[in-house]
Amino acid sequence: MTASPAFAAVDWGTSSFRLWLISQDGMVLAEHRSGDGMTTAREKGFAATLDAHLSALGAPAELPAVACGMVGARQGWIEANYLDVPASLEEIVSKAVSPRGTDRRVFILPGLAQRLPERADVIRGEETQLMGAAASRQNATAGLYCMPGTHSKWVRMENGKVAGFSTFMTGELFALIARRSILAHSIGEAEADPEASAFAEAVLATYHEPQRLTGSLFSIRGSQLLFGDTLERAAARLSGMLIGAELAGSGCKSCGAPVRLIASGRLASLYRSAFAALSIDIEEIDADQAVRDGLVQAARFLGLVGGKERNS
Amino acid sequence: MTASPAFAAVDWGTSSFRLWLISQDGMVLAEHRSGDGMTTAREKGFAATLDAHLSALGAPAELPAVACGMVGARQGWIEANYLDVPASLEEIVSKAVSPRGTDRRVFILPGLAQRLPERADVIRGEETQLMGAAASRQNATAGLYCMPGTHSKWVRMENGKVAGFSTFMTGELFALIARRSILAHSIGEAEADPEASAFAEAVLATYHEPQRLTGSLFSIRGSQLLFGDTLERAAARLSGMLIGAELAGSGCKSCGAPVRLIASGRLASLYRSAFAALSIDIEEIDADQAVRDGLVQAARFLGLVGGKERNS
Repeated sequence: MTASPAFAAVDWGTSSFRLWLISQDGMVLAEHRSGDGMTTAREKGFAATLDAHLSALGAPAELPAVACGMVGARQGWIEANYLDVPASLEEIVSKAVSPRGTDRRVFILPGLAQRLPERADVIRGEETQLMGAAASRQNATAGLYCMPGTHSKWVRMENGKVAGFSTFMTGELFALIARRSILAHSIGEAEADPEASAFAEAVLATYHEPQRLTGSLFSIRGSQLLFGDTLERAAARLSGMLIGAELAGSGCKSCGAPVRLIASGRLASLYRSAFAALSIDIEEIDADQAVRDGLVQAARFLGLVGGKERNS
Repeated sequence: MTASPAFAAVDWGTSSFRLWLISQDGMVLAEHRSGDGMTTAREKGFAATLDAHLSALGAPAELPAVACGMVGARQGWIEANYLDVPASLEEIVSKAVSPRGTDRRVFILPGLAQRLPERADVIRGEETQLMGAAASRQNATAGLYCMPGTHSKWVRMENGKVAGFSTFMTGELFALIARRSILAHSIGEAEADPEASAFAEAVLATYHEPQRLTGSLFSIRGSQLLFGDTLERAAARLSGMLIGAELAGSGCKSCGAPVRLIASGRLASLYRSAFAALSIDIEEIDADQAVRDGLVQAARFLGLVGGKERNS
C-alpha cells in the first residue's frame, strides 16, 4: 500500500463480507470480498473473522473498523438496536455500538425501524448505502430511492433524513415461485432477460392491474402447457409481474422527481428496463460505491477520517 | 350393500383418491378414501389400484367407473386432452377417454383449457365439481363460482357452459411464504383463524389496495420484531392478504349476483369470513358433494345410470 489506511469499511451481511481499506482523505486503498457472512462468522467468531481478513490485507492490528449490515442484528456480533425514523446519518452514527472482546475499535451501525402498525418495517445495511448515495450528490436530501434485492427497499428521504420506507419481498418471491412452486416445471433454472419483450409486457400489465398478480402467475404454467412457452419466456414473465407489482405499490410514478435507483449488475438492468417500460425517469447510483461512500461518511462523523467534522 | 351399484364415481387427484359406489337412481351406496393419488398409482399401476379399492368394497369386476382429476393428465393413467372453453358438461363427457389394459369400462373426463395468450389457463377436476354444483340447483347455469384451494379456481358460467376461468395460486403461495420464506420465523406452523380480526383487516386492506400486496408481506416480520406479534396473528394476516388479493383480482364484487362458494372445512370458513368482511353475498356449496354430483351427472350422459338421458 502506498498510503496508510485510516479505517476499514465493512459491509457485513447474512452471506457476504466486503471490506475496504480507506485512507485519511477517503480514498480506497484496498478491497476484499469473501463469503464470511453471519453464518460463517458465528462459527469462526466475529473478531477472529475480521482480524483474519484485515491482516491478510496487511492492515495494522489497531486499525479501527466501521461496519453496517446484519452484523448488528440480534443474531450478529452485537445487537445495534433499530433507530426509529425519521433519522439522519448523524443520528444513525451516534447510535453505533462497539463489541467487547477485541482490542480493535469497531463501530457497528444500527438499522432503522418504522413503527407503524400496518406498515411496520425494518432496514439494516441499506440505510448506510442510502446515506452514501445522498451524501455524494446534489439535491439528494429529498426524494424516493429504490434499492432492489431479495427484499427490495424503497426509501423516502426528506430534509436529509430517512422519512419512511417499505420492503417488497420481490427477489425472495421470485426464487420461491420460480424454483419451488408448481411453476418450477415451467421456469427451471432460467433467469429473466431484461431485454425480453415478455418482461416489459408483464411489468406494464401488472403495474396497471396489480390486483391480477396472484391470478396471473398460473398463466405462466398455462402458457407453457397450451402454447409451448420456453423457460426463458416464463422467467421473464414472472420477473416482470413481480417487479411491476413492486413499482405499482411503491408510488414511484407520483413522486414528481426521478427515482434514484441504487443497484448493480443484473438487478440494475432489470429495474432500468422496468422503469423504461413505464416511462419513469431514474437516476442510477452504483450500489457498491454507495455503501462504501456511506461507511466513509460514517467514519467522518466518528472522526476517523478527515473532511466534514462530526458536529453533534 | 342393500342395492347393487350401477357405477363407481372416482375423484382421482395428485395425492388423493376418493371413490363412491352409486346406485341406478343416483344414490350413494358406499364411500371410500385413500392416499393412492397419482404418485402412488404410478408405482402400483392404475388399473390394479382401482381394482383393489373396488373389490375391497365388494364391487363386481365388471362395474364401470367414471373418473375425473389428475388421473387424466399427461402423467396420469391416460391423457384426456383439455377441451377448450366455452364447454358444457355434455361436451366434456363426450370427450371422455378409456384406458386400455383393463376389462372394466372406465371413463376419464378431460379438463378444460382457456387459450388466451395472457390468460392461458387449465383446470382438471374442478370442472366436474362445478357441473355437479350447477346441475343440482336452480338458476345455476350462469354466474361466478369460487373454488378455493392450493390453486383457487374462479369460474364463470354462461348459458350452462363454462365460459372462462382463472387460477389464483393462493394456497400454494401461503405455504411457500409461511413455511419457506423469511416470514417462516414469524409464522412457524401457525394456521390462520377465520374469526381473527387481523384476518378480516388484512382481507379488507389488500382488497382495496391490491398494489400493496408484495410490499405488505414484510410488515408481518416488521410487526413481529417491533410489536411482538404472535405466530397466530402473523398467519391470519398473511392468509388475509392473499385471500384479499384473490378476491380483488376475481372481479367478484361486480358480478351482480351471489358468488357460489364451492368449499369444505377450513377453507370454507376462511373464504366465508373473507366474503363477509367485504359484504359480498355468497351461496355455499359443499365441495365433496359437488364432485360426486358431477360424476353422477356424467354417468347419466354416458347412460350408466338413469335419469336425464344423453341427448347428443
